[in-house]
Amino acid sequence: MPIVPFVLLHNRLTYQGRKYKIRIDRLQLPNGKEGEYEYIVHPGAAMVVPVTAEGKLVMIKQYRFAVQRYLLEFPAGTLEPAEDPETTIKREIEEETGYRAHSWQKLGAFFLCPGYSDEIIHVYLAKDLERLAEQPPGDEDEDITVQLYDRSQIEDLIHTDSPTLVDSKSITAWHMALPYLQS
Amino acid sequence: MPIVPFVLLHNRLTYQGRKYKIRIDRLQLPNGKEGEYEYIVHPGAAMVVPVTAEGKLVMIKQYRFAVQRYLLEFPAGTLEPAEDPETTIKREIEEETGYRAHSWQKLGAFFLCPGYSDEIIHVYLAKDLERLAEQPPGDEDEDITVQLYDRSQIEDLIHTDSPTLVDSKSITAWHMALPYLQS
Repeated sequence: MPIVPFVLLHNRLTYQGRKYKIRIDRLQLPNGKEGEYEYIVHPGAAMVVPVTAEGKLVMIKQYRFAVQRYLLEFPAGTLEPAEDPETTIKREIEEETGYRAHSWQKLGAFFLCPGYSDEIIHVYLAKDLERLAEQPPGDEDEDITVQLYDRSQIEDLIHTDSPTLVDSKSITAWHMALPYLQS
Repeated sequence: MPIVPFVLLHNRLTYQGRKYKIRIDRLQLPNGKEGEYEYIVHPGAAMVVPVTAEGKLVMIKQYRFAVQRYLLEFPAGTLEPAEDPETTIKREIEEETGYRAHSWQKLGAFFLCPGYSDEIIHVYLAKDLERLAEQPPGDEDEDITVQLYDRSQIEDLIHTDSPTLVDSKSITAWHMALPYLQS
């Protein structure tokens, strides 16, 4: 740990996007030099590892335009302004999966891409699931299908030669949830 | 899976940053509507889980300006133009840790934040480490310290109430590496 910390000298917004902004901070470094660092200002997000009474994990498959393919993920959503993460994820799980969860446990939080974004993701474990709808309402422009997996299947989806589960936040949340799941 | 795929109608760059660009794609959705999606165009990255002969994991602690704190991470680096990920990570491990690895295994790749970036991270396991320098050369503007941990310590760093290991890519790479580590 340096004795002289990083000191923020000034900052400016360089881009106002639809979902987030880009900011450049000018910092004084521990070695006395100055540097400019560019990153995304993100409102934060929440996600959930939902487990049915039968021990099945509830995941969603959706098209991710940035990588131009369908990805398998745990349900997640971006926080609305001033929203509590638990409120966000209780709404998202119903919209994306058609399940309502009656038992919630916070597992922690992590940074998604601290090299260029301040996004923090809050992680929950949800149990005692109630099926609200055969087909979740979703967002009409989203194209989401719900898929249920056993614990061992999740590991296979990560560790095979052609893995299906290649979403960092979902693998992170899965690892955080493991001590709380029955094997 | 929809029968009608997402169709790219056109795209435009909306921001040219220092490290990456922002692009907006206009897509035709499976429901026939059109939508615009904004994301970061990233060159991709490579990272490594390095293991010493004694079974210690080599990690780095560095200041992440975007989240304004020090984070514990596995060594990683952004690909230079047209660079092979293995070339990138072989350079980065030496610069960041002062170790050279003589045994390399590719574990796979994952998407870091597919909601708003096309970044893919290639993951390697490195063994047969040779200590090149007591103090790694690093980048003079980076403020990196090298830290060695046992396997059980890594789990503690993730699963305690006040976790130190909160970097998504590092937890993801750790989970991918687990089947290849001796317990």
